[in-house]
Amino acid sequence: MLTSDCLGINEEGHLTIGGVDTLYLAEKYGTPLYVMSEDKIREIAKSYLGSIKKNYNGNGVPIYASKAFCCKEICRIIDSEGLDMDSVSAGEIYTAIKAGVDPKKLHFHGNNKTYGELEYAIENGVGDIIADNFEDIIRVNEIGEKLSKVVDITLRIKPGIDVHTHEFIRTGQIDSKFGFALENGEAEKAAQMASQLKNINLNGVHCHIGSQIFDAEPFVFASEVMLGFIKLIKDKFGIEIKNLNLGGGFGIKYLESDPFLKYEVYMESVSKAIHNKCAEYGLNIPKIFIEPGRSVIGEAGITLYTVGNVKEIENVRNYISVDGGMGDNPRYALYQAEYTCVIANRMNDKADYKATIAGKYCESGDLIQENVSIVKPEAGEILAVLSTGAYNYSMASNYNRNVRPACVMIKEGQDRLIIRRETFEDLIKNDI
Amino acid sequence: MLTSDCLGINEEGHLTIGGVDTLYLAEKYGTPLYVMSEDKIREIAKSYLGSIKKNYNGNGVPIYASKAFCCKEICRIIDSEGLDMDSVSAGEIYTAIKAGVDPKKLHFHGNNKTYGELEYAIENGVGDIIADNFEDIIRVNEIGEKLSKVVDITLRIKPGIDVHTHEFIRTGQIDSKFGFALENGEAEKAAQMASQLKNINLNGVHCHIGSQIFDAEPFVFASEVMLGFIKLIKDKFGIEIKNLNLGGGFGIKYLESDPFLKYEVYMESVSKAIHNKCAEYGLNIPKIFIEPGRSVIGEAGITLYTVGNVKEIENVRNYISVDGGMGDNPRYALYQAEYTCVIANRMNDKADYKATIAGKYCESGDLIQENVSIVKPEAGEILAVLSTGAYNYSMASNYNRNVRPACVMIKEGQDRLIIRRETFEDLIKNDI
Repeated sequence: MLTSDCLGINEEGHLTIGGVDTLYLAEKYGTPLYVMSEDKIREIAKSYLGSIKKNYNGNGVPIYASKAFCCKEICRIIDSEGLDMDSVSAGEIYTAIKAGVDPKKLHFHGNNKTYGELEYAIENGVGDIIADNFEDIIRVNEIGEKLSKVVDITLRIKPGIDVHTHEFIRTGQIDSKFGFALENGEAEKAAQMASQLKNINLNGVHCHIGSQIFDAEPFVFASEVMLGFIKLIKDKFGIEIKNLNLGGGFGIKYLESDPFLKYEVYMESVSKAIHNKCAEYGLNIPKIFIEPGRSVIGEAGITLYTVGNVKEIENVRNYISVDGGMGDNPRYALYQAEYTCVIANRMNDKADYKATIAGKYCESGDLIQENVSIVKPEAGEILAVLSTGAYNYSMASNYNRNVRPACVMIKEGQDRLIIRRETFEDLIKNDI
Repeated sequence: MLTSDCLGINEEGHLTIGGVDTLYLAEKYGTPLYVMSEDKIREIAKSYLGSIKKNYNGNGVPIYASKAFCCKEICRIIDSEGLDMDSVSAGEIYTAIKAGVDPKKLHFHGNNKTYGELEYAIENGVGDIIADNFEDIIRVNEIGEKLSKVVDITLRIKPGIDVHTHEFIRTGQIDSKFGFALENGEAEKAAQMASQLKNINLNGVHCHIGSQIFDAEPFVFASEVMLGFIKLIKDKFGIEIKNLNLGGGFGIKYLESDPFLKYEVYMESVSKAIHNKCAEYGLNIPKIFIEPGRSVIGEAGITLYTVGNVKEIENVRNYISVDGGMGDNPRYALYQAEYTCVIANRMNDKADYKATIAGKYCESGDLIQENVSIVKPEAGEILAVLSTGAYNYSMASNYNRNVRPACVMIKEGQDRLIIRRETFEDLIKNDI
């Protein structure tokens, strides 16, 4: 029933994370509460880095996609492991810089970076700008000229690969708001434009084919397509692209029954394809970037809630209401995302009660999960939702004027607060 | 194409709200920007109040469902018009109190009010607690006893009416996390329990049958069902319920083609049914509460964005990217909610360009509207989304670490800031 090996069950039958009793954490910090395992995050970060070292002789870097969970302490941990970081807004760049990250290690993404954001990124010296559209190229060149800088850019390409995952989180095919399409010549036009502008250095190409992918094949195919594009740029414009960014999308376990993509298998398969294709095309092996976000952080996190009431509607449904909901985890409302829900204080009891887990928000769609099998709880017991490390805190709102939860990090059996719970004062701080 | 009479087009062909040029507002305050018409809000508030006066000799109050948009200035405006206010969290109660609203005018709702929230509400003397479940009744009585207070409660009843609107925003039928069901005797049991507890005064009954309803019929039917329940309580427990709260759910115009529920027709039809049924059942006419939220505020608001780029994918789709998105308006991602989108600086041009309006968030599902007909914009032009007054600011997040927009109020042709734009410092204020 557990989705990550950072979770366990102790002698009292309580759920643990990083070896710490979740009941103790709920009592100490209150609920709802996000809890993360630093050990797990570091382990995954190290495995990505090790894999790059092994498969590409270290000529590459994993880039943490910080949109999955961006706060100062997560940035510090990721940075200390030697990963680079993706930013998708000036706010994410700001957060990383405030956490002490060298801006050179930041990569700035987005289908609609504002002019102000591009200025902010370039002034602060981010590593590169992933140009998504012609306006990006023109604006970056203009800002580069104004600031007397030559700015490294990477072109985001749609390699035309349609990975069948949830419709809302699918990208990569031609009908996407992101990137330049290969099929219609747009990508080539972008490369030509970038190669001619004075304050731009066309340094890399990028693709991202989807999310929650469990299969290495589409990544292999994408890398081959991208090398074909690198060859085209070399042949047509005489530029040999140095960086190949293959994006992210590596699946994680939300349910115990979810498949598991061994990143090692993925890395090996892709590496083999890249080495073969480069030999075939007469290209040097580019520096390889990958962009894991969810997979670095997702399984390392859980959310703890207190059960408020259980509503049994005979022959219809049982509702277990908890003290959070779509404000701290909107993913069920948005994508009908699956999650594992457990009663943290009775992990060894039989989970044979069929129920829907509802939040406290004044909206019928405020559900965390429908029709799960769980231990029947009583008011006051602690319900844990697993694998909430990614896209929960980052998507949290103040809907219904509920405050956003605190976040606690566990390292070597020790707990510490990394994000304070919001206060009522926070809610009205910008109200006039 | 306009969805509200607070909107107009001036001589320059610009969209106006409350008579003020939206181009001037976008220039002065920046984008994305929420803009609201105070005149419109007051007009609607007055019409609800007038209708209660006319149909019930003033024996009733409209309650503004503040979850639709809760900030200090909206609370002040609503309060000054003489409406009561619904709160669905301690944070909403706090906001109203900080705005100077008398807590007696607040009604506290929710399917899972925490013990702490109930204490906060009762200590502060809110008007009544809408009890949603047995735990609510027990806890309110317990807190009442502790504080030596007798607390007015209203029972939230599921009248078993299934209004066919969007699945996510449908309530009222028996399969709902909200309220006590009539069919299975739960509601009667709740009334019995409430009538026996010392620190509770069973003062009212409540129902809410759905959202975005354009037809008076289901409201008429619900009021008849509720009066039947009031009669049952009188017959069985000897208590004549004083307050009948008929909830909200009145539809608004998101598209020009949307139907329009004349509230006056609704109020008259329901009033007639209530008068008839009360005569039939030998009941006094109860004090009537209605709970408009969206309909008070929705059409009074718009959102202004700046276009960043237009991506034309031949034979596939055109994407217009704006500088906001699912962070300031998640309703398309959540419910595929329909909106009217216009180019605010060229209102008289032909809207014959088929496009999808995308946000700037790093997610494929971050769309504001798909396949609309709009004037073809260029980067830098202003795109307005209409009828965004409800459930936009209130549901806004910091996803991608984008700051939440400012909100401007227009009164008699004058603009003033009512919510400041968030800053980067706000984003990390609780990060350790």
